Order: sequence, then structure tokens, then C-alpha cells
Amino acid sequence: MLIAHQAQIRKAMEGIDCVPAIEEAFVAYSQGQAVVPPVGELTFKEPPGATHIKYGYIIGDACYVIKIASTFHHQDPKVPAHEGMMLMFDQKTGQAMAMLLDGGFLTALRTAAAGVAVARQLAPKNVQRIGIFGAGKQGRLQLNHLLRVCKCSEAIVWSRSAHALDAFKQEFSNERINLKTTHDPEEVAATCNLIVTTTPATSPLLSASMIRRGTHITALGSDTPSKQELDPAILQKADVLVADSLSQCQSRGEIYHALKTGLIEPGKAVELGNVIAGKASGRSSDEQITIADLTGVAVQDIAISKVALAALKEQSS
Amino acid sequence: MLIAHQAQIRKAMEGIDCVPAIEEAFVAYSQGQAVVPPVGELTFKEPPGATHIKYGYIIGDACYVIKIASTFHHQDPKVPAHEGMMLMFDQKTGQAMAMLLDGGFLTALRTAAAGVAVARQLAPKNVQRIGIFGAGKQGRLQLNHLLRVCKCSEAIVWSRSAHALDAFKQEFSNERINLKTTHDPEEVAATCNLIVTTTPATSPLLSASMIRRGTHITALGSDTPSKQELDPAILQKADVLVADSLSQCQSRGEIYHALKTGLIEPGKAVELGNVIAGKASGRSSDEQITIADLTGVAVQDIAISKVALAALKEQSS
Repeated sequence: MLIAHQAQIRKAMEGIDCVPAIEEAFVAYSQGQAVVPPVGELTFKEPPGATHIKYGYIIGDACYVIKIASTFHHQDPKVPAHEGMMLMFDQKTGQAMAMLLDGGFLTALRTAAAGVAVARQLAPKNVQRIGIFGAGKQGRLQLNHLLRVCKCSEAIVWSRSAHALDAFKQEFSNERINLKTTHDPEEVAATCNLIVTTTPATSPLLSASMIRRGTHITALGSDTPSKQELDPAILQKADVLVADSLSQCQSRGEIYHALKTGLIEPGKAVELGNVIAGKASGRSSDEQITIADLTGVAVQDIAISKVALAALKEQSS
Repeated sequence: MLIAHQAQIRKAMEGIDCVPAIEEAFVAYSQGQAVVPPVGELTFKEPPGATHIKYGYIIGDACYVIKIASTFHHQDPKVPAHEGMMLMFDQKTGQAMAMLLDGGFLTALRTAAAGVAVARQLAPKNVQRIGIFGAGKQGRLQLNHLLRVCKCSEAIVWSRSAHALDAFKQEFSNERINLKTTHDPEEVAATCNLIVTTTPATSPLLSASMIRRGTHITALGSDTPSKQELDPAILQKADVLVADSLSQCQSRGEIYHALKTGLIEPGKAVELGNVIAGKASGRSSDEQITIADLTGVAVQDIAISKVALAALKEQSS
């Protein structure tokens, strides 16, 4: 059994494009080729914390994967708030194949790759400016990845924290992009036609009246029933509404909130894997408003751990 | 983070009595001090296999535990059919503390310890002979452990397989016990007043008419809805009926089958932790028939991993 720590995994993954593997995984999922039971959860009160267990397999694959990911709001600055590992087992024997002690790195990467997979399907042809909500790690990853796939060097990032915005801007200072920062959501909506929301917000940051024709929004911050980044009326207004998992979006994320208010019918959303496979319609004109709701599915963890294991083996060979 | 393999764990656990820790865990569980979500499960068709994820914590403990245990019916004699690991995390930060790659050793041990905890409460004062159903690993462990706590050197083991019985007998050849083997369940029932069933049977091995007054039976083979070792009428006939987990026994194990047939009322069973704590009645006379149904609860995994971690630290210090 291979045991790899975060530094090894980071090094092995350098320069690797994991978007194709993530796309394949979404297709397999939408075609019923994946076994993904409901997420296991442990919650803690003092200090507040939660551990999620996501697990499953793609039928016929060599492995199955169990991911354990935690977030704790403790007060010790020397201990990270996040912990994460992906455990891989042989699908024919149950024997452990690998323990990827990634500390959440692979989860962040697979989420970034999902953002790219969505943008490939739904971003308008000419991206005027990329708008990022949230100046954290996932906001950075999204911008980094999207700059590579969109021929666009204009970007703006929104946060409530001036400090976080400064740090974000600093990190992109060597990139050949024109990066602005703002505290005003409307400035993002008015100047961007590719927007990604990556915050832990529990009430909408964007309202329907702000959203211009031709805009695409990927909402990936909301992965629980309590989190919400978009006004449900935006989902009503959308011409194309895509979910990473139709079943999971019934109980968490933006689609869940829109269904609850009755502003959309369950039949409105299509599944990302079907859009990628050409079995459901994505964007068909530059005028359309498109929304993708990403709540995170275990097939992404399966896909990224397979990529990581191959990369680690390649590195050591 | 400590990573320990089976050989290290076996060595560290030598001579350690883990029954008190298991007893404490059952008490904590019955007193509502444990958070134990439903078991996570992945099943596989070719070859047939299953992986179970048992997880939880005792409120106020230092750790929480996630156990991953698999059984695969593959055809490769070089690969074990079972795999297992217990992962320990800090309850205040979520950081990984230890990975006990025990390959199922600790699960077998905590089940054996539960058998002893039950016998301490429910076995008759004078054990005439110990009867074991099933000549596998758990049957051996049960006999080994029970010989230590009961002043009895008579035992009989039942199996359908003559080969398994020979191997079983061979393993105990150096012990000062009179060990018989049999293919006849009635011989066990007629001569033993402490019986432990450890088989994967899916239909009853023992019928109610066989069971004499004063007998205690611990049924621990049945941990799923499809497995069953006892005629439900035995549970009806019992004076004392104990479950490791009342909630879990509603949906799996012997009590589940007896409830389904309507032969017992849900109120008949009491919980092991309450018997140990003196809050529910155990055996009160040598004439009573007592039955314990053990389906396996995550608190046992929590308890045994704490014992193992302490033993490993002790060993390395």
C-alpha cells in the first residue's frame, strides 16, 4: 500500500490537467455507472466541527474510494482548520491500495477542475471579465484555472474583507492580468459574464435584477442545506440550469433553495455529466443565462485520487 | 500521526485485557454519551463483497474513530478475504491521530471482549461446559477468552466442516481443557449452559425445544438483516433478553427476526450497557434462560482503538 503526504501529492500533481478525468467521472455518474451512497457525517459542538465521509466507486474500475474531510473552527493557529484524506481500495479484493493524506488539497483541486469542466460547456464564447466571489483558496484556484481555459485577462474578485482582497491581489501580481477587487457584488455582475461563487454565504450575494443576459454563473460555495449564494429568482431566470448531481441538489445547494421557494420545477435542471456527454443541452447562444450548481460528488474524489495515484507511481518510477 | 500495521498492533496488545474498556464503552453508549450514525455500506457484485464504515465518538473523549472493514469472496488464495483499519482523529481539531492498519484483528478482539462482557453479566454461576457454534477465528477467540473468565475446562465446538473442527481442536491441543467436536447442535444444547454462536448462518441452528433451563446464549454471528442463528421462539422463551444496541437490533440480528415474527414485543429487550451499569436486570437466578444479541456497535471500535493506541505508545516509549 502506498502512503503519500500532501507535499508528495502536490509535487506529483504539478502540471497535470485533471479536467478530462473529472469530466469522464461526471459522465459515468450521469450514466448510472457510479455507486455513490449518501454522505456520512459527524458533527461536533465544542469547538464546532464537522467530518464528512464521501465514498463510492465507478462500476468496473480498479478501485473504490473513501474520502474523509473535516473542518473544525478551533482556536489553535498552529493547527489547520481542514483535514482530509482519500483512501483507495481494490474493487476486486477490498485490500487497501493507497492512502492519500492530501489535507484537502485534492478536494480543492477536483472542485477547481469541476469549475473548468462547467466553463467549457457553459461559458460564453467571449468572456469579457471573470468575476470571483470569495477571496479564499478556492477563489484563487478557480481564477487560476479559468484564466488558462478562457482567452481573457480581465478579472475582478469580491470579498467583504479588504485584507483578503489585498492578499488575493498580491498573489496574482506576477500574472499578466488586470485584476480588480471590490466589495460591491453589483460591480461584478455588471462587468463579468463568467462568474464563480466560492463563499460559505448563508444568504444570497447576487440578486436576479443584477444578472445580465449572456452571463454564466458557477455556484460552488453552497454544499449544505444552510448555505446559499444566489437569489433563487436567478435560477428561475436562467435559460440553462445544470446540477452536478440532480439527486444531491434536491437536498442541498442553490437548486434546493429554488425548489423550496417553488420558483423552479424539479424538471428544470439537467445533469452536468449529460451536458458533457451531449445528452442534455448546454449553452446554445451567447444571450443565454446559464447557471451551474456544484455541491460536490464522490465521483470527483474517485477521479482525482486515480489521477493522483497514477502521478505518484509515475514520479517514483 | 502514528501508522501501525497488524503485527505491531498484535504485539502491543499481547496480555492486555480490553474487557473493561469495552464495558465502559457499552455503558457510555446506553447512557446517550455516544454519537454513532448509521453504518455506511458499499456492496460489490463481481466478486461479491461488502465494505462497512462504522464511525462515531464518545462525547468529551479525545478522539473520534472511523472504521473501514471489508469482506470479499474473491478466488485469490494469496489475498485475505478481510481487510480492516481503524482511523483515529482528534475530537477538538479533526487532525488524524492514528491509522491502525489492523486487518480486522481489532474488530475480532473487540467482539471477543464483548462476549466476555456479556458472560460476566449473564453466564450461570457454574458453567458446566462452554459450547461454541462455528469453528472459525471468532469461535477460537470466544473460547480462549471465556476459558479465562469461567472456571470451566469442558468445551464443545460445532461446525458443519469436519476439517474446520479438526483444525480447531488442534489449535487447543496444548490447553488443559477437554474439548469435543460435533456436527449435532442438540449435543451442544444438551450439555452446555454457556453457548456462543459465531456463524454466518442465515437460518436457525438452534430451536427452542433444545434449550434447557439455566442456559445462556450469546448470539454474535448475525449482524445483518439476512443472517440468523437462533429460532425466534428461543428469544420468546428467554427470561432475560439483552441487545448491544436496542436501536440497531430493530433492523438486524436475532431480535430483528423475533420482532418480525411477532414472537416478542420491542420492550422485552434491555441494553447491555444498562445491564453492566446496574440500570437493567441481568441474570437473577441459575434457572433463567438468558440471551444476548450482539450486532456490533461503533463504540466497541472506539474503545478498542483507544486501548490499542495507548498500548502502541507504551510499547514505543
